[in-house]
Amino acid sequence: MRISFIGAGRVAHHLAHKLSQHHQIVQIYSRTLATAQTLAINVKATATANIEELNPEIDLVIIVVSDQAIASVISNVHQQLPNVLIVHTSGSTDIEVLAHIHARAGVFYPLQTFSLDRDIPWSDTPIFVEAKSEDDLVLLAELANQFSTRVYSYTSAQRLSLHLAAVFACNFSNYCYDMAQQIVDEQQVDFSLLYPLILETANKALQGDPKLMQTGPAMRGDQNILKMHEQMLQKAQREDLKKIYHLMSEQILQSHETQS
Amino acid sequence: MRISFIGAGRVAHHLAHKLSQHHQIVQIYSRTLATAQTLAINVKATATANIEELNPEIDLVIIVVSDQAIASVISNVHQQLPNVLIVHTSGSTDIEVLAHIHARAGVFYPLQTFSLDRDIPWSDTPIFVEAKSEDDLVLLAELANQFSTRVYSYTSAQRLSLHLAAVFACNFSNYCYDMAQQIVDEQQVDFSLLYPLILETANKALQGDPKLMQTGPAMRGDQNILKMHEQMLQKAQREDLKKIYHLMSEQILQSHETQS
Repeated sequence: MRISFIGAGRVAHHLAHKLSQHHQIVQIYSRTLATAQTLAINVKATATANIEELNPEIDLVIIVVSDQAIASVISNVHQQLPNVLIVHTSGSTDIEVLAHIHARAGVFYPLQTFSLDRDIPWSDTPIFVEAKSEDDLVLLAELANQFSTRVYSYTSAQRLSLHLAAVFACNFSNYCYDMAQQIVDEQQVDFSLLYPLILETANKALQGDPKLMQTGPAMRGDQNILKMHEQMLQKAQREDLKKIYHLMSEQILQSHETQS
Repeated sequence: MRISFIGAGRVAHHLAHKLSQHHQIVQIYSRTLATAQTLAINVKATATANIEELNPEIDLVIIVVSDQAIASVISNVHQQLPNVLIVHTSGSTDIEVLAHIHARAGVFYPLQTFSLDRDIPWSDTPIFVEAKSEDDLVLLAELANQFSTRVYSYTSAQRLSLHLAAVFACNFSNYCYDMAQQIVDEQQVDFSLLYPLILETANKALQGDPKLMQTGPAMRGDQNILKMHEQMLQKAQREDLKKIYHLMSEQILQSHETQS
């Protein structure tokens, strides 16, 4: 397949590299030419900062811009390439954002966290595909199968719910690690001491129901410790961490009281 | 060594099993005799529900009761065993809670999350020891070295700070997994789809600074998605999850604005 990209950020970087193993990457578009060029050189494509320069002789366009920008770029890309399959890669954007302008619309959503300097464990990464036509759905599913052994055809509603859950499971748990690091840093205690605990907690969640795996002072209803921890955060003038501590503990306490 | 336990819960269970490989477990005390008996049978010890029955011919007593209960049991145990080394295993209890009553006081704190049905990766589990006398500290450090390659002599202040950080890194991240599961359950979407993401997030935190690894709509300042997610939670009548979503997102947003 001949594939072009709209966008040249982290996700575009990882997708284009992986796709270039089996397909020809034709063009990389970015508003900033230098950004497009950096990625284009790596995947033997040409770079452009002008949507009117998009080559129409391609099989697939992958839009990998911020969620807000998808709605605004689709009109211009559609005018240039009215008959080409165009997909976005967003967990939280309905396919209709493309489809109400462009008939051959689709979604190619890899459920993963992308950092520039880390390899993506593609074969274990679930990929969710959706398309307005059956033919395009088959085409996207075949493409996804080249990445991963876990390819699913999901509706936009299911995908949106997964993405929201991923914010809790991934973004918020990472912020919990960040807060933990800030706390130990203040006592010159090494954050790496928490590594085994972080891994064990993640592994436990993967082998059972996280609700049943809950431990800690809130779960035990240990009011003395809860009070002491809030006082420690107060004394350290960390009103921000204290607010989170209070809300999380309150909800853990309530959800386990309701349960029993 | 001849060792007795005050308490027969999850932590006592794991410690007694591990210690019974190299040492003699003499007695298990619990307020409920049946609970003491269950553990005692497993580690070839005798069970008692009466502190006055504690055998004084031992080298070490390990108090493994709830943090609140430590202060109340130490007086009785001290009266019975005034010259024996007595330690607690709590991350959040100052050594002075024992030491102001009992001279040979110590702490043996394994930084780990304990579930009854999971093996503990002891050799990677950091253990923090503290004692009022140098001799007792050496004794506890030797004992800890039989469990783990990572033994540290820490003050109570450092241990308290680590324990507070562990609540964020472990208990709160687990609650994030729990909330994620609740969200996907409502759409009949399989929670296991999030496993690769959960593991990748934990592994990333272990290889770099979690703050630099932060991703997601709040990190990107994507107000449209933030609003949409809160509306989804509102519509699902999950005011509890919406509160956490709002507070976490607000703080992630702020902490990364301040940074840049």
